[in-house]
Order: sequence, then C-alpha cells, then structure tokens
Amino acid sequence: MNTSIFDIDCQLDYQLAGPCDFLFQIHALQGLGQQVLEESLEFTPPVGARVYADPAVGHRFTRLQAGPGPLTLRYRAQVQCVLAQRDINAPEMPIAELPDEVMHNLMPTRYCESDLLSRAAQKLFGGLPRGYARVQAIADWIYNNVDYQIGTSVATTTACDVFRQRVGVCRDFSHLAVTFCRALNIPARLVVGYSRFDEPPPDFHAVFEAWLGGQWVMFDATRMAPVDEMVRIAMGRDAKDVAFATIFGPAVMTSMNPLIQPAR
Amino acid sequence: MNTSIFDIDCQLDYQLAGPCDFLFQIHALQGLGQQVLEESLEFTPPVGARVYADPAVGHRFTRLQAGPGPLTLRYRAQVQCVLAQRDINAPEMPIAELPDEVMHNLMPTRYCESDLLSRAAQKLFGGLPRGYARVQAIADWIYNNVDYQIGTSVATTTACDVFRQRVGVCRDFSHLAVTFCRALNIPARLVVGYSRFDEPPPDFHAVFEAWLGGQWVMFDATRMAPVDEMVRIAMGRDAKDVAFATIFGPAVMTSMNPLIQPAR
Amino acid sequence: MNTSIFDIDCQLDYQLAGPCDFLFQIHALQGLGQQVLEESLEFTPPVGARVYADPAVGHRFTRLQAGPGPLTLRYRAQVQCVLAQRDINAPEMPIAELPDEVMHNLMPTRYCESDLLSRAAQKLFGGLPRGYARVQAIADWIYNNVDYQIGTSVATTTACDVFRQRVGVCRDFSHLAVTFCRALNIPARLVVGYSRFDEPPPDFHAVFEAWLGGQWVMFDATRMAPVDEMVRIAMGRDAKDVAFATIFGPAVMTSMNPLIQPAR
Amino acid sequence: MNTSIFDIDCQLDYQLAGPCDFLFQIHALQGLGQQVLEESLEFTPPVGARVYADPAVGHRFTRLQAGPGPLTLRYRAQVQCVLAQRDINAPEMPIAELPDEVMHNLMPTRYCESDLLSRAAQKLFGGLPRGYARVQAIADWIYNNVDYQIGTSVATTTACDVFRQRVGVCRDFSHLAVTFCRALNIPARLVVGYSRFDEPPPDFHAVFEAWLGGQWVMFDATRMAPVDEMVRIAMGRDAKDVAFATIFGPAVMTSMNPLIQPAR
Repeated sequence: MNTSIFDIDCQLDYQLAGPCDFLFQIHALQGLGQQVLEESLEFTPPVGARVYADPAVGHRFTRLQAGPGPLTLRYRAQVQCVLAQRDINAPEMPIAELPDEVMHNLMPTRYCESDLLSRAAQKLFGGLPRGYARVQAIADWIYNNVDYQIGTSVATTTACDVFRQRVGVCRDFSHLAVTFCRALNIPARLVVGYSRFDEPPPDFHAVFEAWLGGQWVMFDATRMAPVDEMVRIAMGRDAKDVAFATIFGPAVMTSMNPLIQPAR
Repeated sequence: MNTSIFDIDCQLDYQLAGPCDFLFQIHALQGLGQQVLEESLEFTPPVGARVYADPAVGHRFTRLQAGPGPLTLRYRAQVQCVLAQRDINAPEMPIAELPDEVMHNLMPTRYCESDLLSRAAQKLFGGLPRGYARVQAIADWIYNNVDYQIGTSVATTTACDVFRQRVGVCRDFSHLAVTFCRALNIPARLVVGYSRFDEPPPDFHAVFEAWLGGQWVMFDATRMAPVDEMVRIAMGRDAKDVAFATIFGPAVMTSMNPLIQPAR
Repeated sequence: MNTSIFDIDCQLDYQLAGPCDFLFQIHALQGLGQQVLEESLEFTPPVGARVYADPAVGHRFTRLQAGPGPLTLRYRAQVQCVLAQRDINAPEMPIAELPDEVMHNLMPTRYCESDLLSRAAQKLFGGLPRGYARVQAIADWIYNNVDYQIGTSVATTTACDVFRQRVGVCRDFSHLAVTFCRALNIPARLVVGYSRFDEPPPDFHAVFEAWLGGQWVMFDATRMAPVDEMVRIAMGRDAKDVAFATIFGPAVMTSMNPLIQPAR
Repeated sequence: MNTSIFDIDCQLDYQLAGPCDFLFQIHALQGLGQQVLEESLEFTPPVGARVYADPAVGHRFTRLQAGPGPLTLRYRAQVQCVLAQRDINAPEMPIAELPDEVMHNLMPTRYCESDLLSRAAQKLFGGLPRGYARVQAIADWIYNNVDYQIGTSVATTTACDVFRQRVGVCRDFSHLAVTFCRALNIPARLVVGYSRFDEPPPDFHAVFEAWLGGQWVMFDATRMAPVDEMVRIAMGRDAKDVAFATIFGPAVMTSMNPLIQPAR
C-alpha cells in the first residue's frame, strides 16, 4: 500500500476592527485514507476556540470569537495519506443504487446551478459513454475551455458565470465540474485541502469528487497539482460549505500562507 | 396545552413516459409538537418504496422506481399538533451562542442568495430593534412589497429575482424572507407542509422559520394561512431541500390535491 | 437580375381593456433591394394613425391610440425583392474602415451582451479564418448547439441566457449570433420580416446581418426559411428596436397571422 | 440670462501594447445652451484623428488608430454655458405627445433593463403625482437608498445589479434613475460631461435627463455636483452610447485627469 507523509504549516493573519466571530475549516481531515500523525493549532493572541466535527462527513470546524486587534492562526500538522487506487473503469450508478446520504449531492446549490445548465451538459456530455471516462471528459473540457487566471472571479461567481465567462480559478473550475456532473445525475461535491501549486500565490486548493462505482473519486479540472498529493480538509456541496474561513464581523485578512510539503 | 387534530388526504397523479426515480417528501413530520396518529401511503399501481428519515431534522423521504405508465400516490394521515406558544419578545442570538448544527442556516443557498442582498437587507432592516419584531418586520415588508400571483415565478426563480420583480408565490415569499434573515445573521430555513389556503389551486404551502430565543419560530410572509394550522412535512435550507417530489426521468404530474382539514 | 414578388397579408387582433398607445413596425421596407408595389393598412374600428420612417435605416413606424375594445390591424402589400448576390469571400473589415454610422452595431445592447461573451466568442471562433466563413461558422455553431423550441424563451431572454440554456426561437438564435459577431468586432444587427416557415405557428421571422466586405450580409442561424425569400420590415440593434408591436396600455393580442406567399 | 464660463483641461494617458483603434467622446457639446468659445485637441505622439458628430444628438466622436507605445490625449476648451431655467412644475407627457425621435428613450438597454424593474418602479413611484416631482422623487430615492462608493461596480454592472446591491458610482446611480423613468413611461437618457466633484479621483460625471414638459430636464441622483455647473459631452441611451473612450485593442489607461474650473 502506497503512502505519503506531508508536513503542513498554515498561517493566516487578520486585522480585526472590532469583535468578530470566526468559523474556520483548516484541520486536515481524519479518515478517508488520511491519518493525522500530529497537529497543533495556535492563535496569537491566544483565544478560546471550540473544535467540532461535521456529523455526516467528519471534517472539523473551529469556532471562536476575537478582536479587536490582530489575530494570527497557525495550524501545523503531519499527515499520512494512503494513495487511493483509481479505477478508471468505475461506472456511474443508477439513481436507485445511490445511498440515501449521497442524494443531496445531486441538487443545485448557491454556486452550482445544475438546473440551469442541464441542457448544456446534455449537449456537451450526454452522448458520451457513461462512467469514469465521462467525468474525466468533463474535467478535460473545462481544462480546455476555461482559462485559469487569478483575479477574474469574485466571491459571488457561480458555475453559470464561469460557463459564460470562460475564466476563473480552482474553485470556479471545480464548481463548473460539480454542476455538469449533477446535471447528468452524477452526484458530485467540492473538496478543499492543502496542495502544492506550481504557481503563486500560496492558497488552498479546490478540486471535485464524483460518485462512481460506489465511492467518491477525486478529479482536478485545473491540472495544477497531482490529486494524490492533496491533503483533504473538507468536502461539501459547494464552496459555501467548505470555506476555510467564514467571518462575522469587521475582519480583514492581511496574509495567508497554507504551506504543504513532503515530510523529510 | 392547546392541540388540534387534522386529517390529511393527499393525492398526486403522474404519467410516466418511461422508467423514473422518485424522491418524495409527503409524510407529516413526526415530532416537533406533531404526533402522527395514523397514516397510510399507497401507490397505484403498487410499487415498492423505501421510506427513510433525514438524520438531522427527521423528516421522511420516500424513494421508489416506477413507470412507464400512470402512477398515483395517495397519502392519508391523522396528525395531532400542539399549538406552539409564540414569544413575541424572543431575542436574536449572538453568533457565538448559535448551536453548531444551526450555523449552516446562515449560508446562502441556490434560491436564497443572502450574500447578494446583504446591503439591501441592512438598509431595509439594519436599523430596527433586534429580535422577533425585526423578523416580523421582514415578513411584513414582503407582504406589503411583493404581489402574490400564481404563475409569475418558475422553478428557477430565486430570492434575488423576487426582490427585483416584486411578485411570486408562497415559496418565493419565504425564500426572500429566509434570505433577508441570513443577510442579517439570523439563521433561517424553509418549512413546507399541508395548509388550508383560501385560494385555489390546492397546493403545498411554504413558510419560513427564524432562529430566535434559542428555537425555531415560524412566520408566513404571505398571510395566507394561520401558521398554527399547518402540518409540517419538512424543513430545509431552501426549496431544493424540501421539494415534495424530485423526479429523475420523463414524468409529468397530471394533478395534485394535498387536502387538509380539521378532523371531525 | 433575379427578382421575386411576394404577397403579404398580415392580420393582428387585440383586445384593449382601456386606452392604449401602439407603436407598430409592420410595413415592408422600401429600399435595400425591396420595392413595395402596392400596400394598404387598415384598422378596425378605424383609428387615426401616423406613419413615419426611421431617419437612419428607413424602416417605417406606425403610431396610434385606440381602445377600449377590440382592435384589428390588417396590412396587405405586394413587394418585389431583388435577390442579393452573396459574396462568400467577403472579408471582415478593420475597425478603421467601418463607416461611422455602423460603429454602434459593435456595442452590447439589452438582448445582446457582447461584453459578457467576449472570451467565449474568442474561444469558439477566434481561431477561425476571418470573413464570411467565420460568420457562417457562428450561424452553424448556433444551429448545431441550440435547440429550436417554441415556448422556451420569454420577453426578457437575452443572448447570455440562450448561450447557457441552449434553447430558444428565431430571435434568440439571432441575438446570440449578433452577440458573437460583436464580441469579435464584426458589426451585426437584427433583421425582422415576413418569411415562410415550414412550422407553425405563423409568426414574424428574425434573422441577423453582419457587416462584411463593406455591406450588410444576411444569415439565418435557424435554417428555417431561405434568406432570399424574406421580406424585410426593419433592422435594429436588437429585438427592442424592431418589435412588430410596442404597446403602452392594457392590450392583449388575441391572434396574429403574418402571411406571406409568392405572388401568383 | 445667466451664463457661466468654464475652462476644461482633460488629459488621458494610455500605454498601447499594439495597434489600437479608439473612439473618443471628449469634446464639449456645441449647442443646447453650450457655446464652445475655443478648443484644442492634441495627441502625443501626433496621430491623425477624425472628428464627426452624431447626426441625431450632435455630440462629437473622435476616431483614430495608434500604437504600439504610449499615447496621450489632451483636450482643452473654454465653454460658455447658459444656465437653464428649471420648471419644477413640468408635466410628464402622454405617450401620444412624445416626439418620434424621443420614443427610443423609453426602451430598455444594456445597462437599463426597465422591463425587469417595471413592477418595482410602479410599487415605489407609481402612486406619486406625475411630473417633475416624481422624477425628483426617483433621484431622491436613489440618493437615500444607494451608497456612493468607488470600486463597488464594474464595467458590466447594470441598473438591476445596482437595485439589488444598493451601491455604485455616478453612472450606476444614473442608470438606475433612467431605468425607473423608462419603467414609468418617462423617456430618459444618460448625460456625461465635465463636472467638479468634491471627492477624488478626478473623473467624468454621469447624470440623467428625463423628458418633461416637452424638453429634456437634467437631474443628478448623486448630489455630487451642481447640474448647473456641468459641461455636457454627450447624451445617449446608456453608458455604452456615451463612453469617453471605446477601445479596440491592447490599451491600458495609465492616468486620467478631466479637469474643469470656472474661467478666471
């Protein structure tokens, strides 16, 4: 069994103009082939934080209050990942064979309006053989038809916007892929995690998973990082579910540096 | 303790041009002050169906395959409801005091783009005293500024559309209310159920709930039916979560008749 | 020189719940290879109407007030058309060589948001050889990628909507074509007129023209009627400029029948 | 008769990565109470440019080709303006009494989707007494309900976006006002010109005009500059018609400084 070990050192700096509530998702996922060997989470100045896990998927949230003033989060971890075998012949599953808890991954969400792109998805991919290869074709189409360009999308950019404007970043690519999958009745979800990009700036990565052959299979429409070398943080219906930081209050992020590298 | 008993007799008729998968949400909720005294669910022609409950909220789904040909669902139930006391002084809760499982009801969803209406919500309701009265003011504003008119919205109509076009039906009213609440950091969700309208055609009803004083409180921006006399089916983030029927395949609904009346 | 003669018999019926102002564009264009041999315009009941021509393009408007009550417009004409030679090698013109009065046909309009589809247009058609063949490729792409289906678009449907939903009627096809052309710096406009469809219901037709080789060249992305056999009514930036009827007041159209046939 | 004289000194700097075509609208309008006493237009490096006037409204366009390399436009003028009398009792005109050439100012355009906001306009302003005071109420509503904030809107922001997001700059304010007017059957158009703002950065100004009492009457929903002290450049259906620079090619504006001050 092929495994890798990664060192994560993630630092986020904020300036708070007043009291703020934070909901972070920065912990490496425990499970699904990942084992967190050690980890630490520090805040400067120190604040009390509560960590809890999503009951369905298991990713961890951190809630806290802070401010006014500066706030730095530093999360360090060593994580061992089992490299998943990819079954490139995995079939799409009939609706009737989808587990109950997977069904909601067929529904449109804030960023993934699969109801609005159903005919487009059918026209582009409806005639292809079903299964792993069709989802790969979706990822390939996005890679070939959408430009990766920092600064071209905003917090409100949805899959329909990306389909029209043909430009975006990793989360936009993944939202569009999720949307096409759902429009074809393939359950799909967003995955965020730590990943090594070749290009700056350092950022979290977003890829997607499709339900094939009775399990979740990861794809990356950006081709920016090997899916094998990503440490998962969370999975969700779209980026709203898995934001690394949801903030209530007057906070400004002044720097982010979610580093990951192979353990020495 | 004030209780009422209702008889439900709900019939849905479909014509299926081929095999279809159905996901129904038509069972009266068991719990939250509702007690299902007796119930039956029949399909004509008979089909095997599986009923399961949402692990978080408890509402029930029915999954089945059918077709081609006609399909009729008939659900009958007698339900006893405890009339909830309304605390019209219930406060809004600070973010820090929201239960973990309620947090996701602050997020924008497919039909409730609270991120896009945050400034509008602040301008309309940001200056009002916080608490029950502010949510009531939201419901009142919608009642006074949006026309109720059958046929003016479609399956893809969102809260932003309703805010702009100022016309819709019950689910549109509720989506806009949910959206305003979330934009003000008040957790909110959609509730669907059986309700007696004064106006035809017979249909399911959609209202909304806001998290006030540590519990969910129901409001109806349409003022079409007393919230006391609604039998709940399901609660969800928006209408995509709580559709009475999600269909995969070539089905056409030929009639619907979700009747409810006080038990004799 | 190849000419054809057509008989037009167009009847529009309205029911007016109160006084209404009408702005019709139903007269066959005089000029651009069309000669109106004879024509008549009658209203029942009789109303005073004023006919004036657009100073730039020359198409004719009819303004009148009527109602309450029924109103019928009947326009009959015999029109001789010179069949334009098509130069399938016509080049696209450099911006610097476009006449001043053509420049505005490069701008986005209500239904043709060419600014929003510029990257998509570049990706789809930017690499093709420039000229007539590229505009033909646009018309072909739309024919091959958008379904023609009555009732799938509404009065507010724009080119961006059509690009996303991949379905529409003749004006939608033409709006999308106009939009792609403008996004590629090819001046383009909508043309409406009388045309023989194979399919019901009887309706006006909308096609588009691109500025190639120093003149307007007509294309029809729907392939529903020969462009040679269309009698022009008007040309404009989009359907808002060339609506056959713009109505101010409570009028309902009860039937329309814009007939055209070869003169016997 | 009350007149003022203004000195304009407008400089625009561009960096061109290749050959570009420009369409400028920077000349002060000659007419409508404005008299251009003297003016000059220089390009550095010198380029040949052609100036022509819009046949309908009379504003002037400048077309030229330039690049690669830097390009500076400098326009200087002295303009005498007659201060228009404002008739605050001017009535709205019935549709039947609108001049033919004004009719198109009732139509929705790229940035002014009056068809989408008609019910909202009716609800907000439909019950007010008609005439000058109603248009003033529109301007006041926008001033009171939309925040002026640089950097909150982009080149594609429309009146519907502004209505929803409740923030924008002068052109956004004016687009929304134009949209409300048209939705109420009041012809309206955008006006751009040189104006003294109190706030940086220096920029052109956009206001709007409504057709009242048989003439165009100017309003400024931003209240940022006295309408009396604006030197008009152009009037159009929306900002696409009256952009100070429409560029075809790889140009970047590096600075703009459209200065205006009372003549000494």
